[in-house]
Amino acid sequence: MISQHELTIATRGRGIYELSADVQQAVGHSGITTGLCSVFIRHTSASLMLCENADPDVMRDMEAFMARQVPDGDPLFTHTAEGPDDMPAHVRSVLTQSDLNLPVQDGRCALGTWQGIYLWEHRLAPHTRRLIVTIQGE
Amino acid sequence: MISQHELTIATRGRGIYELSADVQQAVGHSGITTGLCSVFIRHTSASLMLCENADPDVMRDMEAFMARQVPDGDPLFTHTAEGPDDMPAHVRSVLTQSDLNLPVQDGRCALGTWQGIYLWEHRLAPHTRRLIVTIQGE
Amino acid sequence: MISQHELTIATRGRGIYELSADVQQAVGHSGITTGLCSVFIRHTSASLMLCENADPDVMRDMEAFMARQVPDGDPLFTHTAEGPDDMPAHVRSVLTQSDLNLPVQDGRCALGTWQGIYLWEHRLAPHTRRLIVTIQGE
Repeated sequence: MISQHELTIATRGRGIYELSADVQQAVGHSGITTGLCSVFIRHTSASLMLCENADPDVMRDMEAFMARQVPDGDPLFTHTAEGPDDMPAHVRSVLTQSDLNLPVQDGRCALGTWQGIYLWEHRLAPHTRRLIVTIQGE
Repeated sequence: MISQHELTIATRGRGIYELSADVQQAVGHSGITTGLCSVFIRHTSASLMLCENADPDVMRDMEAFMARQVPDGDPLFTHTAEGPDDMPAHVRSVLTQSDLNLPVQDGRCALGTWQGIYLWEHRLAPHTRRLIVTIQGE
Repeated sequence: MISQHELTIATRGRGIYELSADVQQAVGHSGITTGLCSVFIRHTSASLMLCENADPDVMRDMEAFMARQVPDGDPLFTHTAEGPDDMPAHVRSVLTQSDLNLPVQDGRCALGTWQGIYLWEHRLAPHTRRLIVTIQGE
């Protein structure tokens, strides 16, 4: 069995947005109880992340780390026509994930207790982000 | 056909632990000869890695790189309640992998000659890490 | 349905090589219209990347970023027998991807408009790189 769903997420600009409920709902609707759930983002300046879901400081620190590692307006970059945050957004995306592949057990993604599924918007401006969730199994 | 197995790995604290034999054994037990093998770790302070499997110095250098890039006790971080190695462990996990998706050919993961499957424990203390291996195919 | 293909890419040394057409062709040949396409590289000194496909400056900047982050000949590294670019190539591979998992819709990988599939050769010398493309679906 295969089930494919599209998710559209309207971001409010740079930041980390939890998707766990949206993905679990897609798995629930699929009727698949054992298998795999793939989450894919169709963009190169926003990405996906599995991360600790309990303390919001973890998200603040994650953003602080990336801001130091891949700063906006870095003079190293020549691809600047779309703004000082565009090339850093591509690099941040490459350093994280564009797809996640999650096991499905008992009709749900078998995440760990502290694991959440997140979209990381790397552009400063709000964007509409399109994702595809594909569940395969039985 | 789908086959799902749980693996439990007891780590002795920060370090890199090879899982290739455990994963190949799960593939062998599944009876699946052609398809895909997904390996998933249910934690956010330990991660997965495909890496060179011949020279132990590669693992030492990999750890040295991460220790420089994401040092314990970095004053940048505010999520410090669980210790100076906790937030760095989350960042290291985000920079590496929580899931691997490996092709199965002739009843085995078709790794390259020098490729091994590793769990990277990022916390200093020993932990029990739970993984799910899902094999789909025919 | 499962379909598995091998791709061999002869690189001309360090650089970024687009694979989108090769992967889309494998999906087309499979006859699968809905499902997932996994791309796997059987090496630990070259990797895979989804990235912006419009401006070649993005690739130049991506390489510049990695060259600064993981410089050849870094005295941190002890695994140097295979040359000053070998351990950096392993680190670059670990920081990017060895496998991509792409949704298949209407008989094609459903990439975003600006998304391309790339092989990133991290060694300075030309290499022959072997990949496995596995398509599952209906």
